[in-house]
Amino acid sequence: MADLGDIRALTFDVFGTVVDWRSGIIREGEALGRAKSIAIDWARFADAWRGLYQPMLSKVRDGEIAWIKLDDLHRMSLDRLLAEFGIAGLSEAEIDHLNRAWHRLDPWPDAVAGLTRLKRRYVLATLSNGTVALLVNMAKRAGLPWDAILGAEVARHYKPQPEAYRATAAFLGLEPARCLMVAAHYNDLVAAGACGFRTAYVWRRDEFVVRPKNDLPAVHELDLVVEDFAELADRLGV
Amino acid sequence: MADLGDIRALTFDVFGTVVDWRSGIIREGEALGRAKSIAIDWARFADAWRGLYQPMLSKVRDGEIAWIKLDDLHRMSLDRLLAEFGIAGLSEAEIDHLNRAWHRLDPWPDAVAGLTRLKRRYVLATLSNGTVALLVNMAKRAGLPWDAILGAEVARHYKPQPEAYRATAAFLGLEPARCLMVAAHYNDLVAAGACGFRTAYVWRRDEFVVRPKNDLPAVHELDLVVEDFAELADRLGV
Repeated sequence: MADLGDIRALTFDVFGTVVDWRSGIIREGEALGRAKSIAIDWARFADAWRGLYQPMLSKVRDGEIAWIKLDDLHRMSLDRLLAEFGIAGLSEAEIDHLNRAWHRLDPWPDAVAGLTRLKRRYVLATLSNGTVALLVNMAKRAGLPWDAILGAEVARHYKPQPEAYRATAAFLGLEPARCLMVAAHYNDLVAAGACGFRTAYVWRRDEFVVRPKNDLPAVHELDLVVEDFAELADRLGV
Repeated sequence: MADLGDIRALTFDVFGTVVDWRSGIIREGEALGRAKSIAIDWARFADAWRGLYQPMLSKVRDGEIAWIKLDDLHRMSLDRLLAEFGIAGLSEAEIDHLNRAWHRLDPWPDAVAGLTRLKRRYVLATLSNGTVALLVNMAKRAGLPWDAILGAEVARHYKPQPEAYRATAAFLGLEPARCLMVAAHYNDLVAAGACGFRTAYVWRRDEFVVRPKNDLPAVHELDLVVEDFAELADRLGV
């Protein structure tokens, strides 16, 4: 294991790493389905919504569309999926509420306890593509004890663009080497590592039904590989 | 009293409103003075350092110098004051440590308990000219339970420029009218109010030896005037 004694901040991917987006979106969809008699496969809907995430982000990263908040990208995808799944008759308020399901995701069972331990020694910051408002609302609801809400919106660049990582370290007043990026996605850690961050991979075996190709970690390139945040705290000696 | 039932976030000025900058700077100066046998009046030094604050900020606000972090503005002022007070022989590390005294200020006695009550119902965000790193370090040391660290650095505009307030509300995903600006300085509240924020003035009678002119509130223009954060929580019914 690498020497991580000079780490001062842990920066976290959120969707998939801290919270379980898939079961949260399914739960919110099913609740709406019951209320409005919409009989579709909400698991398939959740996967389709997440499936549009990277293609939409790519359009921003490539400059094809101007900077836009993740909430608005989620909404563009949602409008498209409502049509594709044949869901009609929802009011604007109902669609907006469904779009904000991403603000109401539940943490993985170990997340709050693990973060609470880690917060004793480290600055804990989000380094997420989520908006500040989304991450604040999620944290208030779920009890996530962040010290700072950072990432794409304040950097105005989406991960894995290097500016997202570099700006987050700069806001924390730290050299990237004093920041440990924590994520359940290999490409996020590769990008953070290329900016000088240390890296910790968290296995979130239940995030996907089928894990995307190329998202299996090359363990030798990572500083830490852990099962969950309890093991992360153990390994960091907190 | 105005109806404040639709307030969702409280945004706080920090220096003077949440923390007692004057006694903190004096304490850190006196500690350095004892260690290095520097016999000056550290209260006068603290007042002189704070006295350079608005003139330095004005240079940024007026575009005379490019955007620069508050830590660096503090350092420019500090270098000047070290010369003026005839303080020599400090190492770079010692000067940097003194400059970061602003990261180590103590909260007013009611602040942590009041914020902890207010956090139950409201999003609590900084809306300070301090840097993110400064505010995070201060919060970790003092136990200030912020939900988000916002303000000048993420807005890239110093208060009282309207962009600082507008960007903070936008990051929170809220209309300004759903944000209550809490400050011990009238001009800060006037500027926030002009952006549509609701306003709460906190008397911090010990912040200054002599309160600056024009910093006495026109009470009729404010939504709330309170003695401290305990009264603020009382008045908001938390």
